[in-house]
Amino acid sequence: MDETGRMMSMMSDSAEGPMAGMDMTVMQRCIEACAACEQACTMCAGWMSADGMSGSAMCMSCAEMCNTMMRMMLRPMPTNEGEMAAMMAMLQATSAMCRACAADCGAMGDSASATMCAQVCMNCADACDAMMASMKPMMAM
Amino acid sequence: MDETGRMMSMMSDSAEGPMAGMDMTVMQRCIEACAACEQACTMCAGWMSADGMSGSAMCMSCAEMCNTMMRMMLRPMPTNEGEMAAMMAMLQATSAMCRACAADCGAMGDSASATMCAQVCMNCADACDAMMASMKPMMAM
Amino acid sequence: MDETGRMMSMMSDSAEGPMAGMDMTVMQRCIEACAACEQACTMCAGWMSADGMSGSAMCMSCAEMCNTMMRMMLRPMPTNEGEMAAMMAMLQATSAMCRACAADCGAMGDSASATMCAQVCMNCADACDAMMASMKPMMAM
Amino acid sequence: MDETGRMMSMMSDSAEGPMAGMDMTVMQRCIEACAACEQACTMCAGWMSADGMSGSAMCMSCAEMCNTMMRMMLRPMPTNEGEMAAMMAMLQATSAMCRACAADCGAMGDSASATMCAQVCMNCADACDAMMASMKPMMAM
Repeated sequence: MDETGRMMSMMSDSAEGPMAGMDMTVMQRCIEACAACEQACTMCAGWMSADGMSGSAMCMSCAEMCNTMMRMMLRPMPTNEGEMAAMMAMLQATSAMCRACAADCGAMGDSASATMCAQVCMNCADACDAMMASMKPMMAM
Repeated sequence: MDETGRMMSMMSDSAEGPMAGMDMTVMQRCIEACAACEQACTMCAGWMSADGMSGSAMCMSCAEMCNTMMRMMLRPMPTNEGEMAAMMAMLQATSAMCRACAADCGAMGDSASATMCAQVCMNCADACDAMMASMKPMMAM
Repeated sequence: MDETGRMMSMMSDSAEGPMAGMDMTVMQRCIEACAACEQACTMCAGWMSADGMSGSAMCMSCAEMCNTMMRMMLRPMPTNEGEMAAMMAMLQATSAMCRACAADCGAMGDSASATMCAQVCMNCADACDAMMASMKPMMAM
Repeated sequence: MDETGRMMSMMSDSAEGPMAGMDMTVMQRCIEACAACEQACTMCAGWMSADGMSGSAMCMSCAEMCNTMMRMMLRPMPTNEGEMAAMMAMLQATSAMCRACAADCGAMGDSASATMCAQVCMNCADACDAMMASMKPMMAM
């Protein structure tokens, strides 16, 4: 088991509060997708700007949102409704930015880093959506 | 005029696309509120944890969301609907986290840093809400 | 007194350990210089890349180093020699990056954001150097 | 080949300037070590503070330094001496902070997250040292 797996297993053992039943496999996948997306977007933004291509600003913001989302999932899970709602909203925002960034980078057909960035962004958006679907039943009616 | 003011004036001169008519005063206020909230939450999380008080994890995430939101506003404004929707969602998420964090820190009556943190968080939530209200008319029907 | 000032005053009251005698005015100035430099570099990187100018990658890294440096100063001060040495090394690195970035952005005479960025970077490098000078007497012989 | 591997291969193909001969295996290992260290420190800081243990402030700063270092390596490599010196200084600072954090977390024998954090921090410090050793011959005399 790799490090992220070991971390998830520790977190699962300690989970309590409204998210105690969280599917840790879904969360681990989302953490890894966010980490990969931050890396790809950071690289893409750096290289696009070195090549004099505009469009990299969206990649910079996408990288930061993915990092923020990843760190939130690595911390103790929300213990009240307000914090859970904020986490859901952040998943929603990250998913929306990843799709917008994927559309933009996917349209730059001639750049290897932009093509990979678009794929990794789509994967991250899907992982955030799966995380939201997994959390929804835990929200109070 | 201070530095943030000079930056806003540069951005206003260059704005184009769907957000060209953006009220830069509202955005500058939101940038400054995010910057202050990141600082207060970072300090609060650091000192709460040094004092052996739990609850600081939310402050850490709040600090990162405010920083991510601030940087997004400092970059060229969204040029298409997908990017605008992502920015709106991020404002929504930041506002929700700031209110959740304010509720948590506001309940720790005996800590000076937590009391200040709660005030600065509320101020940031309000500034994000004002920014959303200002952007809404620019969204396509 | 503004928020950063209030935060510094709280920190000063609680300081203990090897850095208990730290000059808080020097540290507050460094925190503010790092915050301003992060903002200017983020804006500069975003706009340079929108204008198809290379060179913005250094501004991105400079923004992140300034943010990391700022947050470290907002947290409880180092309590042992190893942590103090790490803080000194981070001040050194931030100062070096700010000077490299200032040289690069200062050479782009026709960009208002790059010109401002160069000034703010130099100011931040000086503030980091002052902070190092202030910390040096506290290091064990 | 995984994503970081594909990114390294793209970067290797494009490398020019003083660091054109850089050993990409050493750099990839350092990027991965920084990513793992950021995750472990973020989790450790969050859980230590939830458990009312002080000491987490160093983990927070360590997480941010590792993230900043990782992103710098993902961007186009330094093209001049000033930027190279700043990168060396940032490697030095990250290595120093990782060792200080490992010493602190390693001393908390009863916490699984702190024990793992100490190991991952040591690994990251070693990877930064290897990166510095690899860059040194490229610095001008």
